[in-house]
Amino acid sequence: MIEPITGLSNPAVKYLRSLRDKKHRRRERRFMAEGLRLLTDARVTGHLPVILAMAASRDPHPLLDTLIGEVAAGGGRVLELSEAALTKVTGKDNPQAVCGVFDEFDTALNRIDRSSSSIVLVTQAMRDPGNLGTMLRTADAVGAGGLVLVDGCADPFSVEAVRASMGAIFTVPLAVAPWSDFREWLRSGPGQLVGASLRNAQEYRGAPYQSPCFVMVGNESRGLPQDLEDECDLRVTIPMHGRADSLNAAIAGAVLSYEAVAVLCRDRG
Amino acid sequence: MIEPITGLSNPAVKYLRSLRDKKHRRRERRFMAEGLRLLTDARVTGHLPVILAMAASRDPHPLLDTLIGEVAAGGGRVLELSEAALTKVTGKDNPQAVCGVFDEFDTALNRIDRSSSSIVLVTQAMRDPGNLGTMLRTADAVGAGGLVLVDGCADPFSVEAVRASMGAIFTVPLAVAPWSDFREWLRSGPGQLVGASLRNAQEYRGAPYQSPCFVMVGNESRGLPQDLEDECDLRVTIPMHGRADSLNAAIAGAVLSYEAVAVLCRDRG
Repeated sequence: MIEPITGLSNPAVKYLRSLRDKKHRRRERRFMAEGLRLLTDARVTGHLPVILAMAASRDPHPLLDTLIGEVAAGGGRVLELSEAALTKVTGKDNPQAVCGVFDEFDTALNRIDRSSSSIVLVTQAMRDPGNLGTMLRTADAVGAGGLVLVDGCADPFSVEAVRASMGAIFTVPLAVAPWSDFREWLRSGPGQLVGASLRNAQEYRGAPYQSPCFVMVGNESRGLPQDLEDECDLRVTIPMHGRADSLNAAIAGAVLSYEAVAVLCRDRG
Repeated sequence: MIEPITGLSNPAVKYLRSLRDKKHRRRERRFMAEGLRLLTDARVTGHLPVILAMAASRDPHPLLDTLIGEVAAGGGRVLELSEAALTKVTGKDNPQAVCGVFDEFDTALNRIDRSSSSIVLVTQAMRDPGNLGTMLRTADAVGAGGLVLVDGCADPFSVEAVRASMGAIFTVPLAVAPWSDFREWLRSGPGQLVGASLRNAQEYRGAPYQSPCFVMVGNESRGLPQDLEDECDLRVTIPMHGRADSLNAAIAGAVLSYEAVAVLCRDRG
């Protein structure tokens, strides 16, 4: 049931390693998640890896035993690697003792159900995979109906994004689309587009958010392009009290999302 | 005025490289900041590097010329490195064309002036330098009187933290202290200690924040230890609407800080 893998040039090691590379990930339509906690979160939400890889020197753990049993029962491969091989796979000196390979999810816009929640998060050209993963985590925390990635965002299936999502990659509906496609889809149904902006914007606090509310933040250094801002039904700004003129994009997204959710809950209640 | 530095084993290259290492940084009490934007933010707020290093192949830029002139006039060294040497120094394949070495700031608790603002941020055992830098940036954005690092936080002078702070390392008063020292200092004057917590906590929104309000968040995975929570005058919690039970620590800190600032401004107004 458990396949021992020896050597660093074993094809399985090379295959796992290749998934750190976006090109290979795209071709295979698979991605990697690391750590027992993340893999357990995935399992609990109905996602089993097609390949489970762990160190031969691992400590035993009942959650890992459960995972091994379910992956094997589901027809997946369970591999046991040397520490050196696992280091090669994960790219970290101190690899977590287990990682899993998952089939990528469908990321079509119709994965987002706008009737499922009062809020959906949208990012445009967000380049940092850590920020993207954090946005997924925030989307989970505010109970968002999903996260839409518009126009040249980082790869949400990168190891860094998956790690920063702390499991939210498995729980938050995710869509990837060009702006024009997203706009068309958005306008085909109910939805208020709210943009984080500095132009013609009102204070974010207590602004007239409406459900379903699509909260959009832009690129880390440039913010939203003007044509996207122009399309917004509401532009809001977070006041800056210091010397800098901006917040981290994922922070701005979270502050706006929590405010919108609070206003929408109040109006509903 | 500009010293050309040749070779990778030049002592200046080795010295700059050594500052990526915490041990050397501590001993030298110096830290490094990268990029023209960060260095310009530093200059504007009255901080000049003691060493300025840049690629010989750099593009000319008026802000860089200003910086070079002021560093030289102030008695600092201005070094011109090969791209290979700059890559060695910054540890990045694609180094930004300029970096500077600064004397560390004093981080005693008396750097924090609790009468200067209605809010001060506090982190306990925050391990991720990116989160720490983001907290600094958030502290700047909310106009906080400072950021206090309690008990085993990451090094705020690491390259990663400085980078994530987007210049706030130069603008936000920073203190580093053991919990017992911080508690004693806190209780020696006015101040409400507010902890992000799940135990006996009330909804963060509209909670009775009082100025000066010390908003404290804990370690990324463990949160605040019980004895710190017990000391809090107010414990607040951010509702979680999803499957996960937590937010990124820097996100939680920002959501709480913006709420506290809004409540305090409202009460004042």
